Amino acid sequence: MHAARYLGDAAIAVAELEPVPPGPTQVQIGVEFTGICGTDLHIRHGAMDGRVRVPAVLGHEMSGRITALGPGVSGWRVGDPVTVMPLRWCGSCPACLAGHRHICHRLDFLGIDSPGAMQQRWTVPSELLVRVPDGVPLRDAALVEPTAVAVHDVTRAGLLAGESAVVIGGGPVGVLIACVARSVGAEVVVVEPDPHRRRIAQQLGLSVLDPGGAPGGQEIEAEIRERTGGAGAAVAFEVSGSAPGLATALSVLAVRGRLVVVGIHSEPRTVDLHRVFLRELTLLGARVYERSDFERAVQLIADGTIPASRLVTRVEPLTCAAAAFAALESGGDVMKVLVDCAGQEPGGPDVGRGEE
Amino acid sequence: MHAARYLGDAAIAVAELEPVPPGPTQVQIGVEFTGICGTDLHIRHGAMDGRVRVPAVLGHEMSGRITALGPGVSGWRVGDPVTVMPLRWCGSCPACLAGHRHICHRLDFLGIDSPGAMQQRWTVPSELLVRVPDGVPLRDAALVEPTAVAVHDVTRAGLLAGESAVVIGGGPVGVLIACVARSVGAEVVVVEPDPHRRRIAQQLGLSVLDPGGAPGGQEIEAEIRERTGGAGAAVAFEVSGSAPGLATALSVLAVRGRLVVVGIHSEPRTVDLHRVFLRELTLLGARVYERSDFERAVQLIADGTIPASRLVTRVEPLTCAAAAFAALESGGDVMKVLVDCAGQEPGGPDVGRGEE
Ligand SMILES: [Zn+2]
Ligand SMILES: [Zn+2]
Ligand SMILES: [Zn+2]
Ligand SMILES: [Zn+2]
Repeated sequence: MHAARYLGDAAIAVAELEPVPPGPTQVQIGVEFTGICGTDLHIRHGAMDGRVRVPAVLGHEMSGRITALGPGVSGWRVGDPVTVMPLRWCGSCPACLAGHRHICHRLDFLGIDSPGAMQQRWTVPSELLVRVPDGVPLRDAALVEPTAVAVHDVTRAGLLAGESAVVIGGGPVGVLIACVARSVGAEVVVVEPDPHRRRIAQQLGLSVLDPGGAPGGQEIEAEIRERTGGAGAAVAFEVSGSAPGLATALSVLAVRGRLVVVGIHSEPRTVDLHRVFLRELTLLGARVYERSDFERAVQLIADGTIPASRLVTRVEPLTCAAAAFAALESGGDVMKVLVDCAGQEPGGPDVGRGEE
Repeated sequence: MHAARYLGDAAIAVAELEPVPPGPTQVQIGVEFTGICGTDLHIRHGAMDGRVRVPAVLGHEMSGRITALGPGVSGWRVGDPVTVMPLRWCGSCPACLAGHRHICHRLDFLGIDSPGAMQQRWTVPSELLVRVPDGVPLRDAALVEPTAVAVHDVTRAGLLAGESAVVIGGGPVGVLIACVARSVGAEVVVVEPDPHRRRIAQQLGLSVLDPGGAPGGQEIEAEIRERTGGAGAAVAFEVSGSAPGLATALSVLAVRGRLVVVGIHSEPRTVDLHRVFLRELTLLGARVYERSDFERAVQLIADGTIPASRLVTRVEPLTCAAAAFAALESGGDVMKVLVDCAGQEPGGPDVGRGEE
């Protein structure tokens, strides 16, 4: 079978590997679609080389059908459509014992810390399976994982119907957060500098703003104040991972406003704690999801709340995985890019890098 | 009557002023004791000159007895022992309308934005009065206001019995927070570099740690991890207002830990948002108090939970207000300093600065 692997030094190459037969309580999945996310781009850029062991099969957003059951697996049959919640926890660290298993001190994130889904056959523990309901296209189901991120972020915010929410960043995660926030009855505004992404968000019926050139997001702050009767927003989601995005997110909040830190801020950021103090703001870290978020995400895709098919703007065959990364990198009209892992057996690797 | 006023340029001087007769719904209080807090020192240093109009009568921590009632005041009698919740809100801004009147957009903080209690007669709206129960010494009642701050901080943290809490900074506010946190059943540790303050906290039965010389509070982080079975603390209160204090507060927290920002950080601070993300931490701003916090503070002083008399380490007559500020500034054995506003009529100002 074929697998797309990160080899270090920005290289993604397809290799011929032996499928892993499922061991006790494991299942083997015939992967249909695997999404590429910002974390995968980070990995390709080398930003996580201290954590990722090359050659690494990436991919943690996926859908597929069970192809083989290991001994001791019950409740599943070959052919069942599934997605995978790609987290394994230790069960014994203080985080696990406190019930926060998704932020386990020794979390194993499949597709980062261990092999991921960008391959034709993926073998995983059966307890990570999540059923895809009949009638949900597997192409859409590949968006369950990022939707679960969005559900978790909205849950962390405690967002209520009628509240105003500002999403800083209109990429796939930002748009998914906006759709989930809208579904709970919030008034949502997406702030995004890229005109392509603004247009896609607008086509989904979302209200969008261009941060423009004003330093520190002053125009956005004034606009949100105007739209909220002088109060400011109840919730801001910082999805951009940028310093100006963070400043804007803080600036738009009403008293007792909640800021959810979604984007990855790999460098320490300057935060105006005096404003946090004066307005009694709350900053909340949000990381991955819990099982309940994942199951809610399946529902939201199944019932059309999340317009999954409209968010997928490109599908590339597994043999062209490197091209799929490049397309996502290039921006422009691209929103969500999927790798089709189930197409015809490819002839061979598309990138001429050495394989071991 | 005499009043101690901030004149700008670090000068505190006593002046002879006419008492203000109480207008409709107002009362006049014969002030007994007025505490000096960190905010007053900030004002004296000129840090709030953009907000404070000189000459300014400072003081917002106080106790006294009613000396005169204006028209339309009911429920109060001359001689009643009282303290004052020194906040006036507008009632019509978005914060007030949302029920967060203590963080009103146009908050009037008595003793900062309008005349305070460091004078022999203080005239205030009667709705700000809070009754001091019989048997509570007025010297102790001067600590109700800072105790209300501590109650508010602990309430914002949502601190529960059995949780571990770390208080960064062992001055009066830090010790009050520690006492309130202990009273809800938390395991409390106070981190304080000053040996005098550590000793006072220890004498109150609090567990104390010296941050020592380790950069970023590494020793404290290891010690707290050790004491919490590897988990870290559920709550940290950052009372020091310093960059290293903030770093230490973040470092000690367990997954889903809550950091309450109590200290005034007048410059933007660098925050490791990646840690906030990884551990799903929460940062909470906490400012002043609500009426319920103030009333709880009266109870905690009345029932001895707050060892008010042991926290007052110095009392100076109103004529020596400048000396009281200097004593607090000098540190050493000093914890809480009160100004006695009810003593014998003083002979005259103790600081030879011009008065208008
Ligand atoms: Zn992802
Ligand atoms: Zn664990
Ligand atoms: Zn104060
Ligand atoms: Zn107001």
